[in-house]
Formats: sequence, structure tokens, C-alpha cells
Amino acid sequence: MKTLEANILNLLKGAKGSSLALSNISAKEKNKALHGMSQALLKNVRFILSENSKDVAIANEAGVSEALVDRLTLTEKRIKEMADSLEQVASLKDPVGKILKQWRRPNGLIIKKLSVPIGVVGIIYESRPNVTSDSAGLCIKSGNACVLRGGSEAINSNLAIHKVITKGLERFGIPESAVTIINVTDRRAIEILLKQSGLVDVVIPRGGEGLIKYVAENSLIPVIKHYKGICHLYVDKYANFKMALDIMLNAKVQRPGVCNAIEKMLIHKDIAHKFLPLSAGILDDKGVELRGCSETLKILKGIKKASEKDWYEEYLDLVLAIKVVKNSDEAISHINKYGSRHSDAIVTKNKSIAGKFLKEVDSACVYHNASTRFTDGYQFGMGAEIGISTDKIHARGPMALEELCIYKYVILGSGQTRS
Amino acid sequence: MKTLEANILNLLKGAKGSSLALSNISAKEKNKALHGMSQALLKNVRFILSENSKDVAIANEAGVSEALVDRLTLTEKRIKEMADSLEQVASLKDPVGKILKQWRRPNGLIIKKLSVPIGVVGIIYESRPNVTSDSAGLCIKSGNACVLRGGSEAINSNLAIHKVITKGLERFGIPESAVTIINVTDRRAIEILLKQSGLVDVVIPRGGEGLIKYVAENSLIPVIKHYKGICHLYVDKYANFKMALDIMLNAKVQRPGVCNAIEKMLIHKDIAHKFLPLSAGILDDKGVELRGCSETLKILKGIKKASEKDWYEEYLDLVLAIKVVKNSDEAISHINKYGSRHSDAIVTKNKSIAGKFLKEVDSACVYHNASTRFTDGYQFGMGAEIGISTDKIHARGPMALEELCIYKYVILGSGQTRS
Repeated sequence: MKTLEANILNLLKGAKGSSLALSNISAKEKNKALHGMSQALLKNVRFILSENSKDVAIANEAGVSEALVDRLTLTEKRIKEMADSLEQVASLKDPVGKILKQWRRPNGLIIKKLSVPIGVVGIIYESRPNVTSDSAGLCIKSGNACVLRGGSEAINSNLAIHKVITKGLERFGIPESAVTIINVTDRRAIEILLKQSGLVDVVIPRGGEGLIKYVAENSLIPVIKHYKGICHLYVDKYANFKMALDIMLNAKVQRPGVCNAIEKMLIHKDIAHKFLPLSAGILDDKGVELRGCSETLKILKGIKKASEKDWYEEYLDLVLAIKVVKNSDEAISHINKYGSRHSDAIVTKNKSIAGKFLKEVDSACVYHNASTRFTDGYQFGMGAEIGISTDKIHARGPMALEELCIYKYVILGSGQTRS
Repeated sequence: MKTLEANILNLLKGAKGSSLALSNISAKEKNKALHGMSQALLKNVRFILSENSKDVAIANEAGVSEALVDRLTLTEKRIKEMADSLEQVASLKDPVGKILKQWRRPNGLIIKKLSVPIGVVGIIYESRPNVTSDSAGLCIKSGNACVLRGGSEAINSNLAIHKVITKGLERFGIPESAVTIINVTDRRAIEILLKQSGLVDVVIPRGGEGLIKYVAENSLIPVIKHYKGICHLYVDKYANFKMALDIMLNAKVQRPGVCNAIEKMLIHKDIAHKFLPLSAGILDDKGVELRGCSETLKILKGIKKASEKDWYEEYLDLVLAIKVVKNSDEAISHINKYGSRHSDAIVTKNKSIAGKFLKEVDSACVYHNASTRFTDGYQFGMGAEIGISTDKIHARGPMALEELCIYKYVILGSGQTRS
């Protein structure tokens, strides 16, 4: 443990040391570095694939699920996407050094509120090796050093990607340690990292519920949680049925395994007897398992009854729990009680009902007549994302370059003292 | 413990329940409520003073320091100041519901980024009973419910103030539980509170180092730390001596017990032999104890030698540690290593040296030719403050109404689905 701790501290000190250098590098140099990283990925496809195949072989031997093996597996196409993603980040506007506000005090002091990098960003993630290069790219562009800690199941892939993308960084004035990877799979490494509040400024956990809970419970460093998405669609009495069915289908079926897919549908009681049979037909066709409240069961005979637990559950699968509600107020209360403050939608033609829903549902993203599937950095036009925050401080919803920055106050005087 | 836990959970659920109501109340009603609270304080001066005298008597019996008794003691004047402060918060602009940004996506979606209250704000503080009404006022104005947990030494005063200010709240549509106080002094109450991440959205600890460390180490709720201020004044080679001496005196002596007072002074080696004797004369006069690095000791004979520990220490007293540095780069490194990222100042006539200092010193507030004592919500023109954040996410430096808000995305569609 002592050696492990010394090893981790050493890595973190390297990252911290490089963060100042990184915060002072021009947008042009950062973009060149991103371009270099992208090129390096393309040039080293064979090396990365061969290292990746080691992880895949171990996973297959261990008999893990097909879905997990799929998330772990890299292909030439996927590496090309990682390279493209770095180029795209290079093309985005530099978020650092923007004057967010500026004012003059009666005593002549000029106060400027400037956007600056956070400093050292710890990213703790699972499975997908592309997170390694995506996170590194976003952190470099936003002027942050990063400390990456991927899952042990992807260690060979992550180390290979890290090696490839950091190799040429110093040519652009960026120390290699600006992108630091924890090169040991020992779980205690996370425990050690999470205590170093003097070296790491924020931790972003990305992965399953277990990982995120573990990080939140053990961290002395501020954490921005990317937690589960228990997203709702509320179909109001005044909904356009065709629109509601389209949105339902898209939000549930297009990609059921992601956090912005809906897990629950709430239906106004006055339309339930007409809308539910229509929706059940469409969802059945797509192989969606339905679970209903007692009122739903009266209309859709033979489906499974939803238990109290169902309302809290993120299925990430072709399952949808349905509840008939008295009115939009009950829908709002239900969402605020059982939801995860991620993304929730209302379909209605009634503007005042929509307005109340949008105001009172306490979620990062609230939709009127659109699919919850749009909660995404790219779909929002941010050009990238490091994840979707479900916390209520610093950042909510899609987090990208701006959200990887904070501000500082620069105060210009001419000798002012306080009386 | 079971009963205590049930009691605390009950209080927190009350606060959480009222937070939705509060987030929907108009600025006009909130201002009326603040005015009502202010009036209530003035009408109940005798009751508050009599409850406060109980706390003061216990403190005197326990033989605590004069400074602590002073912080604890209320007077008619201090209660009047609390009332004035509520009126001032009423006069500030409502931070809720502002459109921070709005844009249209190619698919026609309109995305609005709106400022909203955080939800339930926990405030854990010590000694000064005015924090009870100040925090309640700021939270109400920013649409947040609050859970207040003052020190046991001020329990009678805090309960009295709480009783007085919440009594009439319901007349303005604000549930009394929007301002919830933890009415037990058992320290385990804090432990229980800090685990309730489903009921409280953020915790702000205000007080000594011990309290803030305890909260940061035990909280499952995001914490915004208001930590110590190890503030520096760097007097550059190109400083105007008169200005540097004025700022030094103001930042060290005007109110040494606060976090934005300087604790350290760094001097460029080329001017140390001239500047140090001048500054020592002035500081001696004011009874400031000086501690110096070995170079300082060569110039200021007879003063105490500063130990490594001195550079990390927040004296909050008439003590100043002095170090001679080679140049501004050494000053910057020293501040980034030993400082607490609070407030640091440079005095120089050289704009390029100043620019580098302002850019590279990683602190919430960096000053050119002005006293660090201006780091304060009122001095910044925010009209109020709930404290000074030394964290690097969500808010840095003075925190007031805007910093007690977060945002949500409201997305308006016409049936859009994701392809």
C-alpha cells in the first residue's frame, strides 16, 4: 500500500505541476496538439488494436456479457471516430480567458470575472476505451490537466491509447503529465486518489451506479456526478397523439441502453383508454416489455404490474413502466419524487400546462413536445461532451468545454485600500 | 440515535417539500417576506436579547475567550444591522428565472438556459447568531429552502431569531419549513444531515478549519468550502513604495481576524533592503509581530525566524511572515504552493509583470495595486454575501445571490425526435 500510495501521489503531483503550464498555452498550440493526438491515433491503429485484443481475450475468457465485450472492443472504425472527435474538439472555440463580466466600483476598482480552467480533473470510468482520448482532448482544450482512471477490464487498451496520444505533446509546450493515466489496476488506487484534495480539483465518475456511489461516498475532492437517467414522458390530455407516439417510440426504442432514454410513461387519465392501446401496439412490435400501475392494468390486460421499486428503476433496456395520472400536477409530483433530475418531457398542445411542467419539474433538461434523447452535448450544439451531470451545483445536463472551466476575479486598482 | 435520526429526517423532508413552493414565488412576494422578517426582528429585540443572554452567560461560565463571547453577543445595534441586511437583500435583483442563454438548433429545437434555485441549501456555522437571519434572507431571495445548523454555543439565540423571522412567512405563501433550523445541539445531528444527499442539494460550512474539514470529510452532499485565507501581498521591484506601504498596512492591520487579511508579504530582493525597514517601522507601530525568512533576518535584525509551517499558517492575528524572493516568478510559485487560493495582490508599476502575476496566481481573487481586503460580496457590489468560496467548482470568491442559483435547460419542440 505504501508503494502504491507513493506511486499514485507521484503521478498526481506530475499532473498538478503541468496544470499551470497548460492553463497558459494558447488556443493555437492546444489545437495543434489535438491535431497531433488525432494523427497519432490513426498512425497507431495496429498497435492499439493489438493491445485491445488482449483485453477482449481476457473478457471473453472470463465469460462477461456480450454487451460488455462490445463496449470494450475497438475496431479501426472506432479508432477513426476517436481521432475525428479530437479534430472536432480542436475546431471548437477556446473557453479559456473569456471575460464573463466586468464592472467598475465607485472607488475606481475594475473587477473582471474571467473564465479559467478548473485545474486538475480526475476522470474515473469504466469499459469504453474511447473515453481515454475523448476526456484527454476535452481537458486539454479547456486548459485542464487530467488524471484518467479507466476500468481494469480495459487497462491494456487505455494504456496503449494514452501512450499514443501523449507521446508528441511536448512539441506543443504541453508536458506529457498533463494527461496522466493511473497505470495500475489495483482498486485501492481509486481510494488513494480520492483523498488528494490538494492535488485534484474535481472528480468526474462515469459508469455504472456502483462506481458513482463509491466515488461520491469516498471522495474528499468535489465530485460532479453523472448519475442515472430515470427519464419520463408525460402524455397530457391535450397531446397530439401522433406526436406523442413518435416521441414515445424514439425516446424508448431508438437506443434503450443510454441515460436519456425514457424509462417511464405517465398518461393523463382522460386519454388513457384511447392512447394506451395505441402505444402498446407500437411498443409490442418493438419488443418492449410493459409494466403498469393498477389503472393501466385495467386497460392493458395481461401486462406485468409495476411495483413501487419499478418507479425508481433505470432499466437501460426495452422495458417501460406506465402510470395513469389524474392530471399534470400529479405527473409533476411523480417525476420530482421518483425521477433522477435528468431529462423529462411533456407532450401537450396546452401552453399553460406545458409552462407549469417546464417550470416545476426539477430536472436538468425539461422538454415540451420533443424527445428526451436530445440531452447530449452534440445534440445541444456544444460540439462534444464529457458526460451529463445530474448534480445541482456547477453544471447540470450536458457538460462540455465551458463546464470544464470556472472563473477567477482579476481586480485592477490604483492603490485602493478599504476603509 | 434512532429518534434523533427520525427527527432530523423529518426536518429535512419539510425543507425539501417547501423548496418547490419557494422556487415558484414571485420576486414581489419574496421581497415582502424579507421586509416582514426585518420588521419582526425589530419588534422582538427584547426577546432575542434575553435568549441571547442565556448563551452569553453559559459562555462566560465556561470561561471561553473574550473574542468568542464578543462574536456571540447580540446588542440592539447588531439586531438592527441584521434587520437592515434583510432589507438590503430585498432591494437586490431577483436572480431566479433569468435567461442566461438561448439558441435554436438546425432541427428547430429552441434551447433556453434558465437560472433556477439550487433547491435545499444546508448551512453549518459557528458562533455569530446573525448568520441565522443573513443566510435565511439570502436563501429566500434566491428561491432556496435552507437548513440551518448553528453552533451549540449560540443555540438559544439562533432558535429565537429563527422563531421570530419564520413566524409570518406563510402570509407570503412561503412555508415556515422553507427556513428550517436543526433544533438539537447533539453533534451527531450534523453527521446525519450530511448523509441525506436526496434531501439537501448543497452544504456550505462557515466557521473554523476544524468544522470545514469535518464537513468535507463526512458529507455525501456536495460541499462548497469557505476555507481559510492565506493571502499574500507581493511587493515587486517596480512598486510605488508609498502605495505598497498603504496596501500592506490596510491588508494586515485594518481587520486582522478575517480571511481576506494578508498573512504573508513577499518582497523582491532588489528593494528589500530599502522597503523592509520602512514597512517594519510602520508595522511595529501597530503592534504587528514579524517573522522572516533568512534573507529578511539579515535586514530586519532581531525578528523571529519563520519556519516552514509559518508559510502555511492563517494567523488571523497581528502577525506577518515576510519572505524575500528573487523575482515575480518565485512569488507566483510560492503563492501557488503555500496559499489557499483566496486573495493575493501584487504592487508594481510594471504592467507585464502584473499581467503574468494576475494570470498565473491560481486564486479566486487576484489584485493589482489594491488591498486584498476588498474580497467581499458588499465590496464587489453584490449587495450581500453568504461567504467566500475557496473551492474551484460552482463558485469562487464572494458568493451571493447568483451563486446560490444553478440553471436548467428548457427545450421547446414541435415533435422532434432523434435520428
